[in-house]
Amino acid sequence: MVSQRGADVTPFIAMDVLERANELDDVIHLEVGEPDFAPPERVVETAVDSLRAGNTNYTAARGKPELRRAIAAHYDREYGVGVDPARIVVTPGTSPALWLSMAALVDPGEEVVLTDPHYACYPNFVRTVEGRVRTVPLRASEGFQPRVTDFEAALSADTRALLLNSPANPTGAVMDGETLAGLAAVARDHDATPVVDEVYHGLSYDVAEHTMLEYTDDAFVLNGFSKRFAMTGWRLGWVIVPPEYVDVVNRLAQNVLICAPNFVQDAGVAALSTPPERLAEIRETYRERRDLLVEAVENWGLDLGYRPQGAYYLLADVSDLPGDALDVADLLLEEAGVAVTPGVDFGDEAADYLRFSYATDADVIETAIDRIDRVLATVERR
Amino acid sequence: MVSQRGADVTPFIAMDVLERANELDDVIHLEVGEPDFAPPERVVETAVDSLRAGNTNYTAARGKPELRRAIAAHYDREYGVGVDPARIVVTPGTSPALWLSMAALVDPGEEVVLTDPHYACYPNFVRTVEGRVRTVPLRASEGFQPRVTDFEAALSADTRALLLNSPANPTGAVMDGETLAGLAAVARDHDATPVVDEVYHGLSYDVAEHTMLEYTDDAFVLNGFSKRFAMTGWRLGWVIVPPEYVDVVNRLAQNVLICAPNFVQDAGVAALSTPPERLAEIRETYRERRDLLVEAVENWGLDLGYRPQGAYYLLADVSDLPGDALDVADLLLEEAGVAVTPGVDFGDEAADYLRFSYATDADVIETAIDRIDRVLATVERR
Repeated sequence: MVSQRGADVTPFIAMDVLERANELDDVIHLEVGEPDFAPPERVVETAVDSLRAGNTNYTAARGKPELRRAIAAHYDREYGVGVDPARIVVTPGTSPALWLSMAALVDPGEEVVLTDPHYACYPNFVRTVEGRVRTVPLRASEGFQPRVTDFEAALSADTRALLLNSPANPTGAVMDGETLAGLAAVARDHDATPVVDEVYHGLSYDVAEHTMLEYTDDAFVLNGFSKRFAMTGWRLGWVIVPPEYVDVVNRLAQNVLICAPNFVQDAGVAALSTPPERLAEIRETYRERRDLLVEAVENWGLDLGYRPQGAYYLLADVSDLPGDALDVADLLLEEAGVAVTPGVDFGDEAADYLRFSYATDADVIETAIDRIDRVLATVERR
Repeated sequence: MVSQRGADVTPFIAMDVLERANELDDVIHLEVGEPDFAPPERVVETAVDSLRAGNTNYTAARGKPELRRAIAAHYDREYGVGVDPARIVVTPGTSPALWLSMAALVDPGEEVVLTDPHYACYPNFVRTVEGRVRTVPLRASEGFQPRVTDFEAALSADTRALLLNSPANPTGAVMDGETLAGLAAVARDHDATPVVDEVYHGLSYDVAEHTMLEYTDDAFVLNGFSKRFAMTGWRLGWVIVPPEYVDVVNRLAQNVLICAPNFVQDAGVAALSTPPERLAEIRETYRERRDLLVEAVENWGLDLGYRPQGAYYLLADVSDLPGDALDVADLLLEEAGVAVTPGVDFGDEAADYLRFSYATDADVIETAIDRIDRVLATVERR
C-alpha cells in the first residue's frame, strides 16, 4: 500500500541509538547534529518585534525582498561573489531547498552522484524524485576530499546532478577551491549540475571556505541559518539557482511550500548582521572542542588519519576494536554512557566508523572522553 | 535541462492578474486567499514567550507531543472523533502535508482522482510524484457537491487516491456527511485512499461540518492553522494518517522537512484553545460578507445557481458577459479596479467562471460591488 518511494526511504540507524539513549540515565550525547549555542539575541528580539508588528501573512514564495537582498550581500561580504537576488529562493529550512533542487533537476531514472560517506538523508532525497544514486568513495588518508577524477569516472550520460557537501557531514572535511573548481568543470563537461550543500559554512577552523559560486553560476547552492547562527528549530534556509531554473524552483516552492514563515524571515535578516566577532568566538569554541576530541581519539589508538576542519563532526575508524562499529557504538552507550552515531548511516564506506559530534560543551566532551578512556582500557584490541 | 516534473508544474494564471493588479493604483483585491483577521492575541504572545524561553531547537519530525495531543483533543471536541496522537504528523503548513501524503501513497503512473473545479495546486502535487490526474466534474446546479457515482465510475485499478477538499476552494461548497461516507465506501471498494484537505474547516456558515475521520480511519486528513486561526504566514499544519502509514510519513518528514518551527508549534497549542466565541464572531463576519457578495452577484444577473456555504470564496458563471472569463477578469481589473481570479486556474469546468474571495472587509467589498455595478451597467449582455 505504501508507495515504493516511501518504502525505499531509509530510516536512520542513529534513531535507534537515540531511542535507546533516551531510555538510559546519564547519557552524554555526542550523536547530536545541532549547535548547543543560543541564536544571537538580536535575532530573537527581531522575531518578537516582527510578530507583534503583525508580520504573520504569507510572503512571496521566493521570500521577502529584504532577506533576499541580505543574503546577496552576505555572498558579497564573505566570498566577494555577486549574486542577483532574483536567483535566491528562501525556504523553510535547507532540507526543503534540497528537495526543490532535486525536483527541479532530476527525472525518474536519472543519476545523482554523491560521495560516500555522505549526509545520511541525501540518498532519500534522490529517492523522493525516483532518481538513482551513484557514489564516489572518499578516503580518510586523503582527508575525505573527493577526487575529481573519481567523479569524472562516475559521470555518464545518465548523470543529472552532483550532490556535494562542504564542510561535510559526517567527516568535517572542507573542500578546497581547486576541488570545487575541478568538480564544476567535470559537471559542465557532462551537462550535469552541481548541487552544493553549504549549510555548515561559517564553521571551518584551519582553512578558507569557498562557495561553489566562486567557480560557476551553473550550480544550485544551498545554505541556511541552522548551523552558523544556531537557528535549527526556526526552519529557514535558501537556495541560489542558475537563472534558467528560477521560474521552476519558484513554481515548485509556490505549490508545495507556499513560503517560509514571515517573521522568521525578518529574524534571518537580523542574523545576517550578527557581529563577525561573535561568530568568530563561536567558531573558536568549536575549534577548541575539535582539538580536544581529535586528541582523545588519537589517544584511544583509533585511526583518525585526517584532520577534520569544519562542521562539528569527526569520523573515527573503529575496526581495531572488537565487533563491528554497531557493537562499538553499543559498548560506548551501554558501558560508557556516551551516545555516538554508527557510520553505516552515512554510506557503506563509513561502515567501520563512528561519528562523534562536538556540538556539545567542552566540559561535557571531557567527561565523555574520561568515560570512554575507562571503557576502552578494558577492551582487548585486534 | 529542467526536469519534466518541473516543466509540468503549472503557474497560476492568478499570478498574472496579481502582477497586473500590483501595477495599478487603487485596486480592490477580491482575488486573495488569505484571511484579513489577525491571529488570536494569545497566539502571538505564546510565540513570544516560547522564543524567549529558548524553544528554538529542532523538534521531533512528527511534532511536539503537546501539540499533537491538542490536535487530538480538537477532533474529540469538534467532531466527537477519537484520534490517536501517534497518527498525527505536524508539518510546516498544510501544503507540505499534502506533498507528504502524495509521496507516501502514489507511485509513478498511478492515478489520483479529484474534482473539477479543484484547488489550483492539486494537480501539481500529483505531478511532483509522477502520478496521473483524473477529474470528476462538479455542477453548480448541484451545489458543487461531488456525485459519489461519478467517483465510482472514475475509479479504476490504477487509482491510488481520491483528493478531496471541504469546505472547498474555489466553490465554497461543504460536503455533507452522506457524500463523505459514500466516497469513503467507494475508496474502500477500490483499494484507494481518500486524502481530504479540511484546511477551511471552521469556516462554514449554514451547515454542519464533518471530518472524513467520522466515516473512516483509512484516510489522510489534512488541516492547519492558516484559515480558521488566520495564521497563514506562520506555516503550521498537520496530517492524520492511517496507522500503517505513520512510519513512512514520519520518515519522509524527517528527511525532507525536518520539523515545523519549534515555537510556532507552541503557538499552535495556544490557537487551539482560542475561545469558541471569538471563532464564532469571525465566522459570523465571513457569513455577512458572503451574503453581501452573493446578493451582488445575483443583482449583476450572473448565474450563481448555488449557495456557497464555506471557506471565503464563491464561483460565478460569467458566460453571459462579453468575451471569455479572462476578458471579464481584465474588464473588472482595468475598468472597475477590482481583482478577481479567473476560474481556469481551478480546472476546465471552471473556465467560464470567476472566483470572488470575501476574505476582505465588508466596507471594501461594498466599494468593489459599487464599482462593478457601474461597469456592468455599461456592458451589453449576450
